[in-house]
Amino acid sequence: MSKVDIVEVMNWRYATKLFDAEKKISTELWDEIEESLILTPSSFGLQPWKFIVITDQAVKERLLEHSWNQLQVTGCSHLVVLAAIKDLGEGDVERLIGDTHAKRGGDAAALEPYKGMMLGFLGHMNEEQKYAYARNQVYIALGQLMTTAAILEVDACPMEGIVPAKYDEILGLEGGRYTTVVACPMGYRSDDDKYASLAKIRYEKGDLIEHL
Amino acid sequence: MSKVDIVEVMNWRYATKLFDAEKKISTELWDEIEESLILTPSSFGLQPWKFIVITDQAVKERLLEHSWNQLQVTGCSHLVVLAAIKDLGEGDVERLIGDTHAKRGGDAAALEPYKGMMLGFLGHMNEEQKYAYARNQVYIALGQLMTTAAILEVDACPMEGIVPAKYDEILGLEGGRYTTVVACPMGYRSDDDKYASLAKIRYEKGDLIEHL
Repeated sequence: MSKVDIVEVMNWRYATKLFDAEKKISTELWDEIEESLILTPSSFGLQPWKFIVITDQAVKERLLEHSWNQLQVTGCSHLVVLAAIKDLGEGDVERLIGDTHAKRGGDAAALEPYKGMMLGFLGHMNEEQKYAYARNQVYIALGQLMTTAAILEVDACPMEGIVPAKYDEILGLEGGRYTTVVACPMGYRSDDDKYASLAKIRYEKGDLIEHL
Repeated sequence: MSKVDIVEVMNWRYATKLFDAEKKISTELWDEIEESLILTPSSFGLQPWKFIVITDQAVKERLLEHSWNQLQVTGCSHLVVLAAIKDLGEGDVERLIGDTHAKRGGDAAALEPYKGMMLGFLGHMNEEQKYAYARNQVYIALGQLMTTAAILEVDACPMEGIVPAKYDEILGLEGGRYTTVVACPMGYRSDDDKYASLAKIRYEKGDLIEHL
């Protein structure tokens, strides 16, 4: 594990406004980004998400008008759409328990308390709360995705200004268990993106962090 | 910017169950982690958050019983509590616009469309939606914090199993604009933490990622 200047990396990144449409992320690098993305931690390890990676230009074009015409959608190399499970439930708990047992072996009965804890937790939530909970996890994945990208010197732009219902329709999620939460176009900044050199706006550390 | 094997890093990290209470994160390294944390991107750049960093053992002890007695709370080196603004509003937009103008200079009038866009966006949300929106941003920060920690070879354990109202009380947030969302004990894994060597449970890439 080599040392990296994480503050330099985080200062290098910015919400890219203009991508160089000619520069594509290599297959090898993209595999690495995907690996990191699916390794994102989630509450209980439930991974209540799906990620749709779009490189098909025609699909990007269709999404553009449902993205307030933000040109990153079509100009990027890879458009990632992060989706959450709408109705997290017992089946998801069973799936996780099954996978845990398959990978770690041991006595299946030993996983019962863990299973009970998850079921109890979800059992106390209504549909809206379950979806909010899954959405929150998706934002962890967004954070991990953006940080990973920056470390690999790949540009990204988190994008909440999209119409999730239209995305769902175009991506074939409609009627299923997953729904679009947020998008993240990724690629390489254009030399013409004047936003790259603007001062970063962050409040003072003393205003954001308290020590006890 | 040096290269780092991000997949190796993400495989190295895990939700630490047992910290080595004797091993503390150095001041220098902690400064780096805080810098990275406050550089987290947020929607519109609004940074609707506050981070409380607790090293005072007495405060950690008081939080323990409101954390399902998860011993990471007291055993960690630094306990980070991530809080969100409950009632995001016009004042927050003004603050961001003011800071942007202060740091980037130029014509203040040029920022009016940006301001109008944010006010319009927030104006369409009810109180609950505003809080959910701020919460989502906090989860990006959690993602960035955990990824940063792993890169710096610091252990962490995201923790949703806490009682936010009690945390607010103990941390002096009660009655204010910020409320506890999630906690993240950080430090160094104990040699006795058997969870460190367990197989990581993640679904197959093909089940989590779709390509279009």
